[in-house]
Amino acid sequence: MGTGLIGTSVALAVSGRGVTVFLSDRDPAAARTAAALGAGLARAPGEPVDLAVIAVPPSQVGAVLTDAQERGVARAYTDVASVKAGPERAALRRAPDPARYIGGHPLAGRERSGPLAARAELFRDRNWVLTPSRLTSDEAFERALELVALCGAHPVVMHSRDHDAAVAVTSHVPHLMASLMAARLGEGPAGLARVAGQGLRDATRIAAGDSRLWGDILQANAPAVAGVLKDLHADLSRLVPALDALARGGAAERDLGMRTLVDLLERGISGLAGIPAAGHGRTADAASPERHGVLVRVAERPGELARLIAAVTDLGGSAEDAAAGLSGGGPGLTVRFAAPAGTAGRLVTALAADGWDAVREDDGGRPAREGREGRKDTRIPTA
Amino acid sequence: MGTGLIGTSVALAVSGRGVTVFLSDRDPAAARTAAALGAGLARAPGEPVDLAVIAVPPSQVGAVLTDAQERGVARAYTDVASVKAGPERAALRRAPDPARYIGGHPLAGRERSGPLAARAELFRDRNWVLTPSRLTSDEAFERALELVALCGAHPVVMHSRDHDAAVAVTSHVPHLMASLMAARLGEGPAGLARVAGQGLRDATRIAAGDSRLWGDILQANAPAVAGVLKDLHADLSRLVPALDALARGGAAERDLGMRTLVDLLERGISGLAGIPAAGHGRTADAASPERHGVLVRVAERPGELARLIAAVTDLGGSAEDAAAGLSGGGPGLTVRFAAPAGTAGRLVTALAADGWDAVREDDGGRPAREGREGRKDTRIPTA
Repeated sequence: MGTGLIGTSVALAVSGRGVTVFLSDRDPAAARTAAALGAGLARAPGEPVDLAVIAVPPSQVGAVLTDAQERGVARAYTDVASVKAGPERAALRRAPDPARYIGGHPLAGRERSGPLAARAELFRDRNWVLTPSRLTSDEAFERALELVALCGAHPVVMHSRDHDAAVAVTSHVPHLMASLMAARLGEGPAGLARVAGQGLRDATRIAAGDSRLWGDILQANAPAVAGVLKDLHADLSRLVPALDALARGGAAERDLGMRTLVDLLERGISGLAGIPAAGHGRTADAASPERHGVLVRVAERPGELARLIAAVTDLGGSAEDAAAGLSGGGPGLTVRFAAPAGTAGRLVTALAADGWDAVREDDGGRPAREGREGRKDTRIPTA
Repeated sequence: MGTGLIGTSVALAVSGRGVTVFLSDRDPAAARTAAALGAGLARAPGEPVDLAVIAVPPSQVGAVLTDAQERGVARAYTDVASVKAGPERAALRRAPDPARYIGGHPLAGRERSGPLAARAELFRDRNWVLTPSRLTSDEAFERALELVALCGAHPVVMHSRDHDAAVAVTSHVPHLMASLMAARLGEGPAGLARVAGQGLRDATRIAAGDSRLWGDILQANAPAVAGVLKDLHADLSRLVPALDALARGGAAERDLGMRTLVDLLERGISGLAGIPAAGHGRTADAASPERHGVLVRVAERPGELARLIAAVTDLGGSAEDAAAGLSGGGPGLTVRFAAPAGTAGRLVTALAADGWDAVREDDGGRPAREGREGRKDTRIPTA
């Protein structure tokens, strides 16, 4: 019910798995477009379906659910709105049969909207939050879990309030900040477009989302969003004087400003370590609990190091964490690669077979995982 | 001079074009690592070189330039720091021969640092700002233009102050905002990592950059950064009450809050239209000044629309701007694709040859370029 980006993507995903899907939208052109894409049939089902997926903006979930349950269109109901407490409250207060409803939120989206932007693969390997209420039946829960599995997503069960507090930090406030920065671009100094790089595009990309849908989402989660926004406003109130001190202050004030600034930058780097890498429902740390070092000695011939990096990559290793240092006092460099504990030994064997002087790093007393920064002044002990 | 990410990438790029490069770094291991990558020779040149590229943090450009000119290492000098007024001031005040210096800033980077993160292709199709001072000689200017061309970048000439004002908006303040948001992730509610999606990763990615280098950059541009930060602080001071009103206000306050919110979201969308798409030094509007509509009628058979989109893509067209609507009152859908004016005719011919009912849209009175949003409720007139 609702064949925009998310609804049509769900329909394409489950149709592709052999499920019969009936499509509806308050705009018949949208439902017929989804049907012509192969997402399902643009007509009402003759009898109650197993699961109705309500894919409408957060403020409309309660009304659509109530109406659908009054008509008895399905045995279970879920939704895909990115705010969960409001729809749950509406279900408990107004819907004829709240036990048959479970909230849902797939963590996937695009800046484009509408059925033509839909992708069957949109949810693959993404998390999909389910927020059972105190009344949600086991059957509704199981139907929703089946839907998540059919879409190739990973189910995550949360309380609706915890979900809303978390997405305020991870999605809603970042969207507002991206909008604030993007709005400044329209009012900025001349020549601004000529110094816009990839970093800016990435930092502001989410601001391109549909303004009416996002207005609805932000309104639906306004209490949590307002709280995070106030925290950010307070952070900014401390940061502005620090930059002012760096711009105009005396030596002591500049020192203090610099400490405030570097402290923020480092807290930012730490904060990033807690969010999962792309395509994983887990953080980088959780995904790779143990990494071993592989040390390779390289002669200082031009291109020799590039040849080694190509060899490591060819063998399935990664040079992303590589660091190079001097081999003791003499000529030659030692390069350290970090490899998952299970593959470090194989990497050493394969490199040695290719003629490289490779050994596994002795892990006694050495941290299994180092920082993310290149350490160009690191001296790596020879193995 | 300086073989970190940017210095080594420049060296790899020009070495690859047959230029002889001499590498130096205050850390000999970094210079030797760059040499072993094939970026050049880790030794001092025997005689003055054509161009010295100073690739050190902004605060050190003045000292490194002065020292290099005192030793007479090159006939011309440039740098790659992302702040330009400070280095220029230092060159004019302290360097023995400011006429031989021109400031430079390639708009490229990575979150990793150090020579092992370097890429010869880092600057390809990126803008590279050059900021000649009132004293810069034609020869220094021409040498820098050659460097930019050898790296495959596009030269952009700006005044150093205009550059710094622009990057404060496009790079430095977005970095600080990403750091503020990322820092909040470390202090957020439980379950936060499970609701982190691609949007958050993109919005905060830049915060991963080297904190010492970024502290230096932000300090060097502190006056401009402080100014933009104050504007953003004022914007946020207006936004917080709007969210508060949406969370707790009466109907009239909620209406006002919603208007403030949607106004911001829309100004953000407009602001994004002004920055160039990836890989272009021009904005999307400038890159595609004229687009024509191609209308295709599609039968409402499941998958027929997906087949059309695949055909358009195969023929080199793009479905990114596609919109579908009803074909008058009867069955069938009409899909509109936007194509560059020069290729719309060919697309129609090729589609017709494949059996599609395709025509060029009559462009009388119709805007050549529509909004970026899917328009699922648009009725498209049959051609």
